[in-house]
Amino acid sequence: MSEAGITVRKSDQFSEWYTQVILKSELADYAPVGGCIIFREYSYAMWEKIQEYLNKRFKETGHMNAYFPMLIPEELLKKEAEHFKGFVPECAWVTIGGDKELKERLAIRPTSEVIIYSMFKKWIRGKRDLPIKLNQWCNVVRWETKATKPFLRTREFLWQEGHTAHATKEEADEEALKMLMIYKELVEDLLAIPVLVGRKTESEKFAGAFYSLALEAIMPDGKALQMGTSHNLGQNFSKAFDIKFLDERGQSSYVWTTSWGVSTRLIGALVMVHGDDKGLVLPPKVAPYQVVIVPIFYKDVERGLILNKAKEAYEALKRDDVSVILDDRLEYTPGWKFNEWELKGVPLRIEIGPRDVEKGQVTIARRDTFQRVEVKESDLVKKVLEILEDIQMNLFKRAKKSLDDHITTVSTYEEFKEVLENKGGFIRACWCLNAECERIIKEETGATIRIVPLDKEEPFTNCIYCEGEAKEVVYFARAY
Amino acid sequence: MSEAGITVRKSDQFSEWYTQVILKSELADYAPVGGCIIFREYSYAMWEKIQEYLNKRFKETGHMNAYFPMLIPEELLKKEAEHFKGFVPECAWVTIGGDKELKERLAIRPTSEVIIYSMFKKWIRGKRDLPIKLNQWCNVVRWETKATKPFLRTREFLWQEGHTAHATKEEADEEALKMLMIYKELVEDLLAIPVLVGRKTESEKFAGAFYSLALEAIMPDGKALQMGTSHNLGQNFSKAFDIKFLDERGQSSYVWTTSWGVSTRLIGALVMVHGDDKGLVLPPKVAPYQVVIVPIFYKDVERGLILNKAKEAYEALKRDDVSVILDDRLEYTPGWKFNEWELKGVPLRIEIGPRDVEKGQVTIARRDTFQRVEVKESDLVKKVLEILEDIQMNLFKRAKKSLDDHITTVSTYEEFKEVLENKGGFIRACWCLNAECERIIKEETGATIRIVPLDKEEPFTNCIYCEGEAKEVVYFARAY
Repeated sequence: MSEAGITVRKSDQFSEWYTQVILKSELADYAPVGGCIIFREYSYAMWEKIQEYLNKRFKETGHMNAYFPMLIPEELLKKEAEHFKGFVPECAWVTIGGDKELKERLAIRPTSEVIIYSMFKKWIRGKRDLPIKLNQWCNVVRWETKATKPFLRTREFLWQEGHTAHATKEEADEEALKMLMIYKELVEDLLAIPVLVGRKTESEKFAGAFYSLALEAIMPDGKALQMGTSHNLGQNFSKAFDIKFLDERGQSSYVWTTSWGVSTRLIGALVMVHGDDKGLVLPPKVAPYQVVIVPIFYKDVERGLILNKAKEAYEALKRDDVSVILDDRLEYTPGWKFNEWELKGVPLRIEIGPRDVEKGQVTIARRDTFQRVEVKESDLVKKVLEILEDIQMNLFKRAKKSLDDHITTVSTYEEFKEVLENKGGFIRACWCLNAECERIIKEETGATIRIVPLDKEEPFTNCIYCEGEAKEVVYFARAY
Repeated sequence: MSEAGITVRKSDQFSEWYTQVILKSELADYAPVGGCIIFREYSYAMWEKIQEYLNKRFKETGHMNAYFPMLIPEELLKKEAEHFKGFVPECAWVTIGGDKELKERLAIRPTSEVIIYSMFKKWIRGKRDLPIKLNQWCNVVRWETKATKPFLRTREFLWQEGHTAHATKEEADEEALKMLMIYKELVEDLLAIPVLVGRKTESEKFAGAFYSLALEAIMPDGKALQMGTSHNLGQNFSKAFDIKFLDERGQSSYVWTTSWGVSTRLIGALVMVHGDDKGLVLPPKVAPYQVVIVPIFYKDVERGLILNKAKEAYEALKRDDVSVILDDRLEYTPGWKFNEWELKGVPLRIEIGPRDVEKGQVTIARRDTFQRVEVKESDLVKKVLEILEDIQMNLFKRAKKSLDDHITTVSTYEEFKEVLENKGGFIRACWCLNAECERIIKEETGATIRIVPLDKEEPFTNCIYCEGEAKEVVYFARAY
């Protein structure tokens, strides 16, 4: 356990604050190999909650998990040209096996389209083999040359990648959208982070996609963070890999494929969005421990009685499936424990001291608001469940307000640049669909189009850059 | 789905039978990169059951999951000399990242002791930091030069590896034994495969261990298969990595570490032990589907009624947490479906035909014995649960009988060689503890000491090889 709290303010030194929170709350640590981190048990427990949530939703919607090899022969990676161009600059290559130089070098998967679709080619014959709906949980490696940052950008990370094959464009459209919406539910419901959803522009889409859908959230420093993507890959990969099926009339057609993924990056978003000057603040639905019980005694004679009360509370909460920890360590003071569990963002703390026992009550302290309330022993479980629900809602509401505050509608390029410099966040503006305008804006300001909304919004000015006729309202931002 | 059944007999061509079962039941497929396989959804679903079982037991015993980086700098791997010597011949090496040659090559983890213990060094200061009890689920790569075989030996496989650090030898002893026993329960209770447990000899132990414990099962061809291992690593790694803690008296001591793991190899064992000439036979506790319902109708007028009955049965079983699939595909005949689900080893098949509906019954067929029994609709759920339990027990009993039949006690080296040639299995014999005898026996016969029993057995002859005084009764076998 770390000995000291966070020494900088979130609002003053956001980046340093982030690093301190991650290291001191023991979510992660730096690895002996550059650009990689250890996902320590405290962050991994949250990843397990995300896995549990998604596995349930994936299985309900007819998907099954599988596992494909991590090593991809270079020849295979080259088959879809756009895809190769997009990923080869960041591949890590295995060139030696045992003591032998390999004849063909092998990429560690940066993503698994090509290895999976080389198998779809083998497995798909007729219409009865469709759809195929698979998902895999795995590690991927992307040899980042930009500065890395725990959870947000590391050379190895964990994710899930779904891969499906369908007979028609319509089915693939439906699948890509359905998975995007499951991600939105995950992020908003479990992680309490509101998002914008939409389509990526041609220049921002996934390498090899027909089109890409994405979720975007806003971080407190005004930068956007992509939280997940879902791609309709069209027939791009099926043509490159020659994946055809015979339909009922004996006609041969290429299948339509989709892929979609979210990663451990979500944990970084969780830290940024909800954390405060004391450390992590975790939404109850994703918190490894929802409640910590801290017994407080000053004299040895009080100890037995208070510990018994603490154990009773522990058992009662456990029975109702509250994830609770009893911190009965003798070598730390209550004050030290308060700081530690606040740093770790446990949503609720229950204090049981001599005065509480005397009055047949416990004291509950909320991590999100620091409110403290005294609760009768007999009401404990009911009250805890209520407050946990309220914390979950409150964190979402706060974050939603921040998102809303971070969307600014602008009418001129001057205004655009001014908002970007002074406030950041999403900038809602009109665009003519010309990639050249998009490119120059990015070059001049560093802002990209994060999404084109799924529900088309009516343009309210001309194109923000060229002042030609606008076709879409889009959301720009600088992004992680 | 595959179109044809198994074309060889298990008893005639065991190795070919194994490959056919794996491919045709769609457990696995060969990957485009040599020596690797795809863990298809049907085998991965079993791996998920194994994960669920173990995660529960690991957490009950105070362990948490984490995730450590896959890439290990060569320098780090060299720190524990025995360990390096043991693993370096089978490492795959990353030498290029992006378009740059790396300064130091990185091994893909063949196992994670060194990366994890380099972090323990950082995290452990005093006694209050102990014990550390972590586990990780991940992929590992071992660049096999021997012939590979799906599940049993592939260049990439999935496993869990537990890693713990303790203050004393006694705690590490206890941990290593506890985890061995959890594995024994997993394998016997979930997979219905009986095992021998014991200690490895010095020459067979894990590279870098103080001692190794292992589970060994017997395959129908008479060869042993190691099902899991649990090592007390002593202070070997803590000395190499300088992992010390200050005890209460301010004395500095090296910690004791353990590591333990089981892998997707268990699925290969499952296939070999329980399968028959028709394909897989799965124990209900690990089967992705425990029951398949096949509606049977010949005339269109029967269809609606029979499908309704099938759906009723499906819903009733689902309500009682039976994992059931309703095969209502119209493009296949009932006979085709029977073959397919037998190939896939589903423990129970429920047939519902016109005669069944008329008599208010269903027909249940067991995969393990092919027995068919008619059951009143109203007794369905109760009966299914009973039979599933009986199948689980029956498979274990069968396998236990096979294990018992495959243990032969011998008194002379002649007898030893004869049993090994003609029967195989475990050979129970006396040994003088001299590594030279062990080495020569291995050289001359290919048999190794699989385990030294944990409960010491009294020697009943002199050493089987040198005829000197025997110190231990041990179990030899040829092994996968």
